[in-house]
Amino acid sequence: MATFSVFDTQMMSRAIQLARLGQYTTRPNPCVGCVLVLNGKIIGEGYHHKAGQGHAEVNAIADAKAKNHSIKGATAYVTLEPCSHYGRTPPCAEGLIKAEVARVVVAITDANPQVAGNGINMLKRAGIEVEVGLLEEEALTLNLGFMKRMQTQMPWVSVKVAASLDGKTALSNGVSKWITTTAARKDVQKMRAKHCAVITGVDTVIADNPSLNVRFDELGSVKHSHDEADIFQPLRVVLDSNCRVTPEYQLFQINSPILLVSTKDYPAQIKQQFPAHVSFLQTTTDAQGRVCLKTLLLHLGQSCNSVMVEAGATLSGSIISQQLADELVLYQAPKILGSEGRNMLNLPDYQTMENLPNLTLKDKRNVGHDTRFMFRLG
Amino acid sequence: MATFSVFDTQMMSRAIQLARLGQYTTRPNPCVGCVLVLNGKIIGEGYHHKAGQGHAEVNAIADAKAKNHSIKGATAYVTLEPCSHYGRTPPCAEGLIKAEVARVVVAITDANPQVAGNGINMLKRAGIEVEVGLLEEEALTLNLGFMKRMQTQMPWVSVKVAASLDGKTALSNGVSKWITTTAARKDVQKMRAKHCAVITGVDTVIADNPSLNVRFDELGSVKHSHDEADIFQPLRVVLDSNCRVTPEYQLFQINSPILLVSTKDYPAQIKQQFPAHVSFLQTTTDAQGRVCLKTLLLHLGQSCNSVMVEAGATLSGSIISQQLADELVLYQAPKILGSEGRNMLNLPDYQTMENLPNLTLKDKRNVGHDTRFMFRLG
Repeated sequence: MATFSVFDTQMMSRAIQLARLGQYTTRPNPCVGCVLVLNGKIIGEGYHHKAGQGHAEVNAIADAKAKNHSIKGATAYVTLEPCSHYGRTPPCAEGLIKAEVARVVVAITDANPQVAGNGINMLKRAGIEVEVGLLEEEALTLNLGFMKRMQTQMPWVSVKVAASLDGKTALSNGVSKWITTTAARKDVQKMRAKHCAVITGVDTVIADNPSLNVRFDELGSVKHSHDEADIFQPLRVVLDSNCRVTPEYQLFQINSPILLVSTKDYPAQIKQQFPAHVSFLQTTTDAQGRVCLKTLLLHLGQSCNSVMVEAGATLSGSIISQQLADELVLYQAPKILGSEGRNMLNLPDYQTMENLPNLTLKDKRNVGHDTRFMFRLG
Repeated sequence: MATFSVFDTQMMSRAIQLARLGQYTTRPNPCVGCVLVLNGKIIGEGYHHKAGQGHAEVNAIADAKAKNHSIKGATAYVTLEPCSHYGRTPPCAEGLIKAEVARVVVAITDANPQVAGNGINMLKRAGIEVEVGLLEEEALTLNLGFMKRMQTQMPWVSVKVAASLDGKTALSNGVSKWITTTAARKDVQKMRAKHCAVITGVDTVIADNPSLNVRFDELGSVKHSHDEADIFQPLRVVLDSNCRVTPEYQLFQINSPILLVSTKDYPAQIKQQFPAHVSFLQTTTDAQGRVCLKTLLLHLGQSCNSVMVEAGATLSGSIISQQLADELVLYQAPKILGSEGRNMLNLPDYQTMENLPNLTLKDKRNVGHDTRFMFRLG
């Protein structure tokens, strides 16, 4: 494996910082940043803003040219392997070759089978020195959904739970307003804005009547750095095995895509009552007669890099116990709801500690008075 | 209220730091520290080590004299009002008067009815300037148990719980080894060493067969700053309403005081099977036919500044729901035990958020991989 200098690391850190600027807007494309350096100075910077627009390398080259810098002999730091295929834009590897860079440092290779090493090979064949693996974990963290989908055709699955210190999401009578603070609920808005889809269950729709949309006004700092038109609304997915949902819920009043998922077909006269932004998916049933979650996720994997589960204890628990979840995001309020409250995740009756879900803590921070934990699962 | 300078605050901080050195050894006396200052320089320091030995002021005066400093005209910073009564030592107020200090700064007045302002008045009558209230919260925190007992005849009650992120203390089959890490278990040893008594229930004794003692080897840093002989063993209190416990449990093998608490008298032939370090208390019953917790705490208040509850969900939950607990110390492990696991506290079926136990977070820190929360209750 290549060894990198402190300067290399600083430059790649900057490229990652740039890539992160696209985290709300690039999907279904990955977030990518690029820094061009000549004689120890940054001569150009760029990142990928939006699908259909310039890639990071193209933007960095344009930036350098706009500043009248010569790029010949430069080093390019790129957070993801430069692409090698003709998509909506010409291959970035070709752009770097034409710009006559001398060296390319790459954080991670692309998991996209259309690229997967081809970009690097194209550069090497052109006599460019290529080094791979600098800050790879940081670069990967930015594109967990994209990377997983390219490798498995399944989206990255984050389960979000808001609970008390004793793991309860509501009192026994269902009262749950408000366990967490406004700060945590705003943070959930940002989380929604980052995900391609939000999955919930029909019982949550009936009990809480949520909108499950992204509210631009509640996006905090994101609001100041983005135009409202650039922020995606996640696809709202409702699991409704037995076709129980009706069009009067709040969800349907907001004109952005909804997918209703059931195990049987909705009757035609019911279907036509829903607005045009609602579509339908019929799946196979699981052992409990409910929507087969794996089938659903494979379907969503056709278009979604990542999905967020905002559901009750049964659906969230099923996704975890069926080992379909990649991440658990827990907002924990410093409250005790008591033993009679509702449990946060319905999980099997484990008999040994070895059988418990395997959690790896990735991040833990205060969000208002609450604590946000991010765990990897599996 | 008096206003204090930055220098005053620095000196009182030092006095509190000194007081803290006695936190494992002074009981049933309070922790007290004293700093003597003349012309902007510390000339003597002292703290109370152990009941029956010199008080903080006496030790600070002796320290100044040993260093050949003249004390006349000095300022004394004391974390607790100097005592005014003849106990095992002469009154400290008198000592300060004899030493001819010019000014005394006190963090908190003594809650002991034998002192309660008398010490301050004694100093004032001797023409000494006295100011009260500097860093009072910090000084109070050091002596929560002593202050509460003096004011109410009840000990400070800390409930300790070790649970998972979803508020479970064990799997449904009782398996609980180990939810928290060694670091958390060592921290519990320090907590035991600070408390005058540890309360548990007979079901915990039967299920887990704990020793409930302080193990000097597991005290970490305390081990290096104290002699083993100076560390107290807490009184071990077992609630055994129906006289079910028998002498073969681990608890009884360790020769330090145990109190068995029941609602009826143990038969004479059973009593005599227990070793000499076991004593018995019979209390009234509560509405559920169990030991009346308030009666027990009033009894313990005769000798204990603070008690720690290390019990199952029923006893710990009862102490909280009966509003007898002052503090909840929660060691939270980053694990999910699942909805079928055992709840950490058996509490009433609350119907509104307003009825929940009122928690105020006082401290939150990492202990190994676990998080320790300290909450005030009520």
